Amino acid sequence: GDIEAGKAKSAICAACHGSEGVATSPIYPNLNGQNEGYLSSALKAYKAGQRKGGLSSIMVSQAVALSDTDIEDLAAYFSSLK
Amino acid sequence: GDIEAGKAKSAICAACHGSEGVATSPIYPNLNGQNEGYLSSALKAYKAGQRKGGLSSIMVSQAVALSDTDIEDLAAYFSSLK
Repeated sequence: GDIEAGKAKSAICAACHGSEGVATSPIYPNLNGQNEGYLSSALKAYKAGQRKGGLSSIMVSQAVALSDTDIEDLAAYFSSLK
Repeated sequence: GDIEAGKAKSAICAACHGSEGVATSPIYPNLNGQNEGYLSSALKAYKAGQRKGGLSSIMVSQAVALSDTDIEDLAAYFSSLK
């Protein structure tokens, strides 16, 4: 994915995942440095409704608004953060 | 959770998540330093069958064998790894 495009797309994520991918609460995952392949598979699972329970509903509502390109870009961006 | 008990329980996790929580492949998530609250909610979601698709089946088969105490201990252990 494209890191710059991902960064532009990531503004809304910062509310829970922090501006540098370090979550604002321990109930949300840190994303900084997480594996790109895993991030995109997790986002696609939320988008496809394959994840339920807990706080998944927040993520489903976010993921359904993302194209596959957005997902690849966001995955590239967050995994690029150390 | 109890970090030592989590460490003892974590041997089987190393195959995919690495001996220090750094995944052995980019399709698996790194767990080192991940938030304890998130780790336990994710494990509980796998255990409750609330996560499907992708490689979730591997995790479901692992999580169903864990007690809630095991889950808390594993979450404490992996989040303690920097």
